[in-house]
Amino acid sequence: MRHEFTREQYEALLLRYRNWGRWGPEDEIGTANLVDAASVARAAALVRTGKVYSLALPFDRNGPQTGRGRTGRVNIQHYMARDGGDIAADAGDLPHFDGTDDLVQLYLQAGTQWDALAHVFWGTEMYNARTTADVTSAGAAHNAVTGLADRAVGRGVLLDVARWSGVDWLEPGHAIDTDDLERCAAAHGVEVGPGDFVLIRTGQLAQVRARGAWEDYAGGDAPGLSVDAAHFLCGRDVAAVACDTWGLDVRPHESGLVAPLHVVLLVNAGIHIGEMWDLEVLAADCAADGRYDFFLSAPPLTITGAVGSPLNPIAVR
Amino acid sequence: MRHEFTREQYEALLLRYRNWGRWGPEDEIGTANLVDAASVARAAALVRTGKVYSLALPFDRNGPQTGRGRTGRVNIQHYMARDGGDIAADAGDLPHFDGTDDLVQLYLQAGTQWDALAHVFWGTEMYNARTTADVTSAGAAHNAVTGLADRAVGRGVLLDVARWSGVDWLEPGHAIDTDDLERCAAAHGVEVGPGDFVLIRTGQLAQVRARGAWEDYAGGDAPGLSVDAAHFLCGRDVAAVACDTWGLDVRPHESGLVAPLHVVLLVNAGIHIGEMWDLEVLAADCAADGRYDFFLSAPPLTITGAVGSPLNPIAVR
Amino acid sequence: MRHEFTREQYEALLLRYRNWGRWGPEDEIGTANLVDAASVARAAALVRTGKVYSLALPFDRNGPQTGRGRTGRVNIQHYMARDGGDIAADAGDLPHFDGTDDLVQLYLQAGTQWDALAHVFWGTEMYNARTTADVTSAGAAHNAVTGLADRAVGRGVLLDVARWSGVDWLEPGHAIDTDDLERCAAAHGVEVGPGDFVLIRTGQLAQVRARGAWEDYAGGDAPGLSVDAAHFLCGRDVAAVACDTWGLDVRPHESGLVAPLHVVLLVNAGIHIGEMWDLEVLAADCAADGRYDFFLSAPPLTITGAVGSPLNPIAVR
Amino acid sequence: MRHEFTREQYEALLLRYRNWGRWGPEDEIGTANLVDAASVARAAALVRTGKVYSLALPFDRNGPQTGRGRTGRVNIQHYMARDGGDIAADAGDLPHFDGTDDLVQLYLQAGTQWDALAHVFWGTEMYNARTTADVTSAGAAHNAVTGLADRAVGRGVLLDVARWSGVDWLEPGHAIDTDDLERCAAAHGVEVGPGDFVLIRTGQLAQVRARGAWEDYAGGDAPGLSVDAAHFLCGRDVAAVACDTWGLDVRPHESGLVAPLHVVLLVNAGIHIGEMWDLEVLAADCAADGRYDFFLSAPPLTITGAVGSPLNPIAVR
Repeated sequence: MRHEFTREQYEALLLRYRNWGRWGPEDEIGTANLVDAASVARAAALVRTGKVYSLALPFDRNGPQTGRGRTGRVNIQHYMARDGGDIAADAGDLPHFDGTDDLVQLYLQAGTQWDALAHVFWGTEMYNARTTADVTSAGAAHNAVTGLADRAVGRGVLLDVARWSGVDWLEPGHAIDTDDLERCAAAHGVEVGPGDFVLIRTGQLAQVRARGAWEDYAGGDAPGLSVDAAHFLCGRDVAAVACDTWGLDVRPHESGLVAPLHVVLLVNAGIHIGEMWDLEVLAADCAADGRYDFFLSAPPLTITGAVGSPLNPIAVR
Repeated sequence: MRHEFTREQYEALLLRYRNWGRWGPEDEIGTANLVDAASVARAAALVRTGKVYSLALPFDRNGPQTGRGRTGRVNIQHYMARDGGDIAADAGDLPHFDGTDDLVQLYLQAGTQWDALAHVFWGTEMYNARTTADVTSAGAAHNAVTGLADRAVGRGVLLDVARWSGVDWLEPGHAIDTDDLERCAAAHGVEVGPGDFVLIRTGQLAQVRARGAWEDYAGGDAPGLSVDAAHFLCGRDVAAVACDTWGLDVRPHESGLVAPLHVVLLVNAGIHIGEMWDLEVLAADCAADGRYDFFLSAPPLTITGAVGSPLNPIAVR
Repeated sequence: MRHEFTREQYEALLLRYRNWGRWGPEDEIGTANLVDAASVARAAALVRTGKVYSLALPFDRNGPQTGRGRTGRVNIQHYMARDGGDIAADAGDLPHFDGTDDLVQLYLQAGTQWDALAHVFWGTEMYNARTTADVTSAGAAHNAVTGLADRAVGRGVLLDVARWSGVDWLEPGHAIDTDDLERCAAAHGVEVGPGDFVLIRTGQLAQVRARGAWEDYAGGDAPGLSVDAAHFLCGRDVAAVACDTWGLDVRPHESGLVAPLHVVLLVNAGIHIGEMWDLEVLAADCAADGRYDFFLSAPPLTITGAVGSPLNPIAVR
Repeated sequence: MRHEFTREQYEALLLRYRNWGRWGPEDEIGTANLVDAASVARAAALVRTGKVYSLALPFDRNGPQTGRGRTGRVNIQHYMARDGGDIAADAGDLPHFDGTDDLVQLYLQAGTQWDALAHVFWGTEMYNARTTADVTSAGAAHNAVTGLADRAVGRGVLLDVARWSGVDWLEPGHAIDTDDLERCAAAHGVEVGPGDFVLIRTGQLAQVRARGAWEDYAGGDAPGLSVDAAHFLCGRDVAAVACDTWGLDVRPHESGLVAPLHVVLLVNAGIHIGEMWDLEVLAADCAADGRYDFFLSAPPLTITGAVGSPLNPIAVR
């Protein structure tokens, strides 16, 4: 359900889950600190069948972005610097080596992605008391997505809220709160704890596919998490949370704020957010055998100073 | 050692290891077909300590590319569509949400990467009898890198040829052949078999770091694999091979051919090639405890039609 | 009015106005050969008041492109590599020099532009018997837009067909033919002859501004030239023709062909085409004093191998 | 000759030629205000032969940029979104329309260009008391290059300092001062006055061509203008000044300052600067007949918010 907070209540929540200084004044990765070798080894032990799931949407011109919005985010643009036609033209009589080459223009948050902790500010502050001065045209000097380079590996837990709710997809505006997450986890028979990667399925991608069009998936009304879900996520010290929507927060946003859960997680708790992860096939298989935790490998690209990163998250069951 | 082939010998080699049709006329992934759930499950069981290794170089302007060469490949260019200065300017009195946003121009083979099977042609043909007509300005209709989306996971095996040879790095022009690989694997106490991901360390990145400059790492003379290594790689049906150099093949190339091993592997055998993987830390730890196989998760980005992909390969020991 | 041609009639028209070989086998600029120093000097003598008109639309994200279509043409994207926020952050106590820097991604035909002769093919042929082999991923080896570098200067003549027709704008589908152009020119009191740059106003930009939205300006139904206008343009040997629509040819296209006038002009006659030129202010002033010819300077950017170019055309009356 | 200024002398110079407020508090174009219809008409009357000169360098990968420096400025990158190979592949039996399409990534100051007044700051201030807050990641809200859209037309005057000095080119470090400019103009028999566009030739492009390599043309030592040249340019109220070097200011810079003349001109006087203009052919012809003034049309692209613009300047004699 949706929750409305007063400004005072909201600011109290921000402080309640603030992890600034918890891992020292130089920390840039927040609760990803809770991922360690032991937790990774335990996660690897969850592999039973060895079935691999790619949780990435295709990156192409048919993606969800519209070019609208303040930064004009567009879908990936892919160009060939050398293609088959060029090779055919240079083929000559005797076969020889030739190669194709390509490049992209890519908004780092145009598709399946991680938000870095440097992606969101509350006023002029971001995670661990870093400020706007730390993100210039040269990129993020601190809290960049590269902090996750070898940390986005561990135990994944799927909370399939849509299926648990008995629907193909949650409707736009539907807010998932802590009570929902707790009951869903209980129904799934999984515990969520420190250093886990929680994947939350609203089913919105099923809806997109059913209607055959993205429509306003990017930036329109959407199902998502209530600010109240902070109690679940921060209280359990999850390493990160990812979902199948464009923006994690339920839309319309609650309490007249913009993306209020983003501020709790990214700015205060230091919990990374994944968006536009495709959980459809994984969720069907989890439902089939009732196992909702698995090994997850979801590293960002190591783009220096980036405030987000495209990725191809891999789950192994 | 370097090997010289006559044109006839070379063409016979191409045919000897040609896997066209082996997995049907529609196949686009070659020996990655040998990765299956069982092999992934076995690979996961290799995890002991849970230590995670990111095998990616940083993606930034200080990378190895020079802009020279036929396609003008340059290092990644990273731009902020909205940065901290913009947020500070809009801050106002009352703290509120604000966000940064960024984008890149990225040659898909500018840094740590996979070559797709569509990256290389012999004459006008590529893997599985596909032709130049299959790679247009719109991208690769077949043999794109997305074929690996959920297949680049499994058992990784490091062959640290430099360390086994007793040197910090192999010198440019030093060719690694099948005999070297067999003896190195034996010394490491590992077997290499079908569906494995073989990572070969020449130490060239150690050399780059020792001299503090890329110099001609991209496109200059380099240590690497002899064409003769095809017997090891194709004979064992490895899923893919990756290395720490710009181009895998030893340079200067052997036999007056251009990248002759690329043609054996990508065009004929359907064995994907990874390049510019940073194996330094992983290699040191393998040497420390003598375990040279591990779990590897190395998915490409799911860029439709791409002939290569940047990635952040993850090894877990 | 609209004209319908049979395939045979159309092919006869192509041959009738074909200028291949007229300026030798190496020619790459077609009727722009008819621009010479004498014609430029005469054009300069047309300047009376000295009033300058910029005929370019703004290049920004609010342009007409939609990203749809085969090549995914999007509006210009402009990024700051260094902005004021960066400078403020580095300001220090003592004033010193600092600079901003910016870049764009720009489809060369995204806004006010020239089509090069290499932009259009009929089958596998383009102007002067050049073929598809002449335009590779490396650009156009022949018939590139740079041929106009010092040739797009001379006498401009405005034919304000909308105003002459007594309307604010011509409706989509309205076709302008040779009879219209002749009568309009007569009404304006101007002759059109060899080496002239003819600017044809449909008023569609007035319509766009009246409705406050581009809607389907790019690629939708539009007023424009009938194939029949070839008699006027080719018969008079104009150097080039430009208009205020996205695509010059009336849309829906005539005769079940795609952009049939483009093929006559670019492929056969060697007459360059300008599109999305903003003629509104110029047209009002021409109407005010009844003078419809002027000095025009409309050079393309000198982008090697380009098949189109953005520009800021300048008229001086 | 080179001139050395104390900080106090330099700051006095800045104030001496400061035009802030001269054309009102909203002005964004500085001395380009002195270009008016009458001056344009007079300039058009300078056309005698009608010979046209394109003053642009080619825009391609072989340009002068190196990718080094704070903003990583690289040469233009040109890609085909659809090329001849694609068209050939789709040709079919019956000829039909098909088209090529292309795009660029272009640093706006990578080649022949205008610096906007928003390109340079002194401390946190730019022309007419605008500040760093006016140039965000969204571009320049004020003093953008679009101010010149219809103002960069008028009388051009070439001062061929190299030829006047009796050399093929001035050597790096050679500073041109007011005394040089006055004597050169006198030798050429031209007066320079308000609203003129002054083109200054050092011959450095001749040197580049003679040696067949750009070497450190971009950012290395170069001939250019002394700060002392401000007396000539500002004292005569020129509309703009352009040159054939990468950075106008002599390099090494004088007085331990960075680009000190840039600050006088762009920040204080509101005089636009053109760089990397190719004056070689124009200069030879001026020398041949002794006429050093001409009609100039040098409009920037109308890129909203841009702090610079590529262009193809046109001189007509």
